[in-house]
Amino acid sequence: MRIEIVAVGTELLLGQIADTNSQWLGEQLAAIGVTSHFHQAVGDNHERIVLAFRTALARADGVIVCGGLGPTHDDITRDAIAEVMNVPLVRDESVVTAIRAMFESRGRTMPDSNLRQADVPEGSALIRQTMGTAPGLICPVGHKVVYAVPGVPYEMADMFSRAIAPDLQQRMAERGESAGVIASRVIRTWGMSESGLGEALAGHIDALDARSHGTSSATIAFLASGIEGIKVRVTVREEDEMTAAAVLDAEESAVRAVLSGAGGDVVFGIDDEAIEDAVAKVLLAEGLTIGLAESLTGGLAASRLVNVPGASAWFRGSVVSYASEVKFDVLGVPEGPVVTEEAARAMAEGACRVLGSDVGLSITGVAGPHEQDGQPPGTVYAGLARAGHETEVMAFTVPGDRSRVRQYATISALDFVRRSLGRTTTA
Amino acid sequence: MRIEIVAVGTELLLGQIADTNSQWLGEQLAAIGVTSHFHQAVGDNHERIVLAFRTALARADGVIVCGGLGPTHDDITRDAIAEVMNVPLVRDESVVTAIRAMFESRGRTMPDSNLRQADVPEGSALIRQTMGTAPGLICPVGHKVVYAVPGVPYEMADMFSRAIAPDLQQRMAERGESAGVIASRVIRTWGMSESGLGEALAGHIDALDARSHGTSSATIAFLASGIEGIKVRVTVREEDEMTAAAVLDAEESAVRAVLSGAGGDVVFGIDDEAIEDAVAKVLLAEGLTIGLAESLTGGLAASRLVNVPGASAWFRGSVVSYASEVKFDVLGVPEGPVVTEEAARAMAEGACRVLGSDVGLSITGVAGPHEQDGQPPGTVYAGLARAGHETEVMAFTVPGDRSRVRQYATISALDFVRRSLGRTTTA
Repeated sequence: MRIEIVAVGTELLLGQIADTNSQWLGEQLAAIGVTSHFHQAVGDNHERIVLAFRTALARADGVIVCGGLGPTHDDITRDAIAEVMNVPLVRDESVVTAIRAMFESRGRTMPDSNLRQADVPEGSALIRQTMGTAPGLICPVGHKVVYAVPGVPYEMADMFSRAIAPDLQQRMAERGESAGVIASRVIRTWGMSESGLGEALAGHIDALDARSHGTSSATIAFLASGIEGIKVRVTVREEDEMTAAAVLDAEESAVRAVLSGAGGDVVFGIDDEAIEDAVAKVLLAEGLTIGLAESLTGGLAASRLVNVPGASAWFRGSVVSYASEVKFDVLGVPEGPVVTEEAARAMAEGACRVLGSDVGLSITGVAGPHEQDGQPPGTVYAGLARAGHETEVMAFTVPGDRSRVRQYATISALDFVRRSLGRTTTA
Repeated sequence: MRIEIVAVGTELLLGQIADTNSQWLGEQLAAIGVTSHFHQAVGDNHERIVLAFRTALARADGVIVCGGLGPTHDDITRDAIAEVMNVPLVRDESVVTAIRAMFESRGRTMPDSNLRQADVPEGSALIRQTMGTAPGLICPVGHKVVYAVPGVPYEMADMFSRAIAPDLQQRMAERGESAGVIASRVIRTWGMSESGLGEALAGHIDALDARSHGTSSATIAFLASGIEGIKVRVTVREEDEMTAAAVLDAEESAVRAVLSGAGGDVVFGIDDEAIEDAVAKVLLAEGLTIGLAESLTGGLAASRLVNVPGASAWFRGSVVSYASEVKFDVLGVPEGPVVTEEAARAMAEGACRVLGSDVGLSITGVAGPHEQDGQPPGTVYAGLARAGHETEVMAFTVPGDRSRVRQYATISALDFVRRSLGRTTTA
């Protein structure tokens, strides 16, 4: 079963919004084994929407069209589908009743413009609306199909999961197609460059490519994602979810082994596990609390740590000491230059003292564009204080503009905590 | 001149990454008056890339293809273009030399696989690479054209601005086309809901629609953007940039007047001006410094303020008092419940005292999913302390999960500073 996604909206062509709906739908289709060879975006123009549908139906078994179901005169997806089906639009009174009830439940009267949303191409089935006013549509075109959903992301997602995915699976079963699944796993790393990861894994990737002419295959891709780390994504296509999971497990182990040999302890998480989750894990394992002293990162590191549910068990807080006087007066940093190893050490120890935490992490550095204390933009010092241990300081440089310097400094400093405490734990 | 964008990469179809390149290119094309009626995405498959090119060339004057120019066997955009042009690939020795020099400058030897990047369709012109290894291409196909650029966003952007945009403008001049420009302006608001904005502006939008049958037109769209506010976007298509700017100025004034009548002081910025820029402006206008005491938002408000270049002139820092003891011990909040008006007041005053700032802003509340101090998730108190003024506290509730609660709390609290100090300034 091959489906083409068509996103409708002039704002997509003008780059005013990103087409996240097609991305989401692509991921969902892959997960249920539906192939997608092309995506299209098209503006709010009747002839062009019709042309996009005809182009898509010529090269796929069906289309999911997203957007253009609203109540205004720009919303012409229904008309375009009717033309491709060669049928008239007919008003569905059950939809009128449902829309009117939705307005009345909010104490408002339905504007006449919403009546358009009750006009459906003759012969199509409705996907009942549960969150907005526009129903979705399942429209037969010969032996092919056009599914129409609203462009509002949560309405689109709800209708896909509730109606389109089951319908696709039924069609595949009727065609005797083994659906198969495409599944992927993200191995998140910090400490090696993207090209370093590529070189380390080159031999493994060559071996996979050599094997991929059989029925089973795994592919590996790299994605540098700023504060989220550098991702190694393994994608497999297998008969069923269990096989896919087993192949992904084996691939994850292989990648971990290669990277461990090449770069040491660089894997900090899997899939959605962010660096703050890894920090939470080592702190919980040792029963330690943490406090921060942030200058360069201005609260960014703290704002990441509070993302973790239950952070209050181990996160005390942060002193964002942007002004030098706050470093001197609140954290007890000796007066003088503040982008130094000494300042990072004093800030980390000050964080423990002021916030009453077991561990103190400090980040000081130069965001740019100008140098500070004789140090160029991208210079960072991170300090790690811990009762009963010598305070450690890590000096490093990161590339990029102010925003990227802050992101890289944050993930580097949090990874410093993960590695240092992890080392103690396993030692 | 009509251009279709074709993005190449199986990872786009699988939804593994968002197609931000097409969005960026769409915006750039509109800015120079080039029309785009369709976008396509296609996987790394020779026949399908060729089909995508032929489809695009049938309905546009040219194609910009993005991606598939790398050194690996998956990178087959060059081969597909050669097939569409019906010419062979020929190795360009000047490209070989450039790639080899780039590797040598990094102290490395060029792998043989990179030689593929020097194979160019016969008869095409090169766009010299300045940041990576793959050159871009300008490929004539009959009287139409295919531009090829790498998928790496900054390489793509560099080649578009340096070579493709000038080439397109020259072609339009040769065709005697008045380019015209599509321009837009974003009016950023906080304090009215999206539907409230829509209702307030409904009459104005109807009047625009009635006028839009002439040569000039303006359209208005709404976009709720979390911590970036709710955006009102005005888009116009005009003969030249000056006319477009004048129409946008008039539209901005009209929208400001309507919103000011309907919701008061809700416009905080234009285009890229974020809420932190608006806060910086009122602080600089009064020569005041600010310090924060953040609980709920965990450093997010501070991390936004340091985005503003020159923040050190007015931003002192933040005490992220996530643990209640930090509120009591560092900020001097009386022991007891911490999601209260009294705690917000004491935190704001504590921020001034501890950080030595003229103004103190506090944010305390419940991120969820569980209630705290008997208050439901989404409950927020923001305090604003200022020497010589009564400390103000604003209580409000915001919807959403933990992340959205934090974002809405942050923009609401920063907007509270903008409005309160702005009121004093103009009073």
